[in-house]
Order: sequence, then structure tokens, then C-alpha cells
Amino acid sequence: MDADEKAIRDLVATWLSATKAGDTAMVLSLMSDDVVFMVPGKEPFDREAFAASSQGMKGVQIDGKSEIVELKILGQWAWMRNRLKVFVTPPAGHPIVRSGYTLTILRKNDDGRWIIARDANLLVAEQG
Amino acid sequence: MDADEKAIRDLVATWLSATKAGDTAMVLSLMSDDVVFMVPGKEPFDREAFAASSQGMKGVQIDGKSEIVELKILGQWAWMRNRLKVFVTPPAGHPIVRSGYTLTILRKNDDGRWIIARDANLLVAEQG
Repeated sequence: MDADEKAIRDLVATWLSATKAGDTAMVLSLMSDDVVFMVPGKEPFDREAFAASSQGMKGVQIDGKSEIVELKILGQWAWMRNRLKVFVTPPAGHPIVRSGYTLTILRKNDDGRWIIARDANLLVAEQG
Repeated sequence: MDADEKAIRDLVATWLSATKAGDTAMVLSLMSDDVVFMVPGKEPFDREAFAASSQGMKGVQIDGKSEIVELKILGQWAWMRNRLKVFVTPPAGHPIVRSGYTLTILRKNDDGRWIIARDANLLVAEQG
């Protein structure tokens, strides 16, 4: 595995562990300033909206499992398809399972660090 | 506008006009053999599944409007964000309006032609 692929795989693992730990600052460090997130049925949203949403999720346990099904590195850019399963558990509630795929555009910063630049998240709640 | 950007904008226009005309062969010519389509709540599907689905849509009028909101060309690859609004009208039925965004990965073929390689489609039916 080459260094770029390893760095991107590490980024995904860090994203999931930081999300699980509620470490929003760490998650925000993994995305570009101009990041755009896309989900079904909403307007695309930016870094600030992501941060605000994370603040609103305090106390919610988010445990995600990821399988990178494709990763293509194009110099300073890359794209990736991920299969995800996310267990979302409110403080006093039942877990909701969301599953599906993401298509993500990544960029290598001038400091050599990979970050997420665009993300299309197609996850839906599994039928109970 | 450079030649690659123009070619990709033409591809999007051709996709919409061929879809409206029910010209599945033309639409299929705009995607790679290994294309992967992703939509919410389904497993990703390939070219053959796309073709079969198009056959099943005979008689359905599909009229789409597109606005390319971002297009980044990376040599032989490109990524694009599109805002779409699609009017789907069955032979004897009311139109359904689907709207939202796509994130698309494109590739430049050896013959210099741009084609769609991966597509994440986040469109949902608008509330009536």
C-alpha cells in the first residue's frame, strides 16, 4: 500500500474514532475550509453547518463501521467510495442504524496531509 | 472555457436530451464500461442494470434541467457537482418532480472523449 493510500485509510479511521469520541475539533481538522457535504433531501452544507450540527448531537453516540470499496489517487486529489454502517444512539433512546455508501473527493494539502473536500452521503435509515 | 470543460458541459446536455428522447443507446455511450451509479437506499448498480432500468421506463417522459455548480478538471479525470430538477411523467399519470444534487466522477477516454465513471445521485421526490 503506498503512503497516500495509507494516509487516506488512516483519515477514515480517525474520522470514525473521533466521531465516536465526540471530538468535533478533530473531525473538523480532517476537512477542507471549503468542504461541501451533500445528503439526500437537503441543500449542500459547509464546515460551519457541520460544526453546528455536531454541537447539536452532544450526548448522541455515533459508532460507524467503514469499508473502503474503491480508492483512486490522482496526484494531489483522490476519490473514494465507502460502504458505511452507522449506529446512532440518542442519550435515552433506541439506536438507529443508517447504512449505505459515500462518494468522497479528497485533496492533499500543501503540508502533505489529506483532507476531505466534497462528500456525497447516500446513507438511509435501515427498516426496523 | 477550455476544451475539456466545454466537452463535459456538452456531455451533460447530451445526457439530458438523450434521456428526454428515450435514446438509451446514446445515454449508454456517455458512461464507462465500469461505471457505478449510487442512489440512496439501494446497492450501487452498473451499466447493465442502468440499461435494464431504462428499458423498463419506456413511455415515461423524463425531462431534466441541470446547473453545473462545480467542475474541477484533473488531467484525465474530473469531478463535478450538478444541481438537477427532473420531471418524470408516466404514460397515464401525473408528473413527479425529483430534485437535488449529484456528485460525478468523469474520465477522459483514450480517444479524448469524456465519459461518466461514478455517479452519486442524491435526488429526492419533491413534496407535492
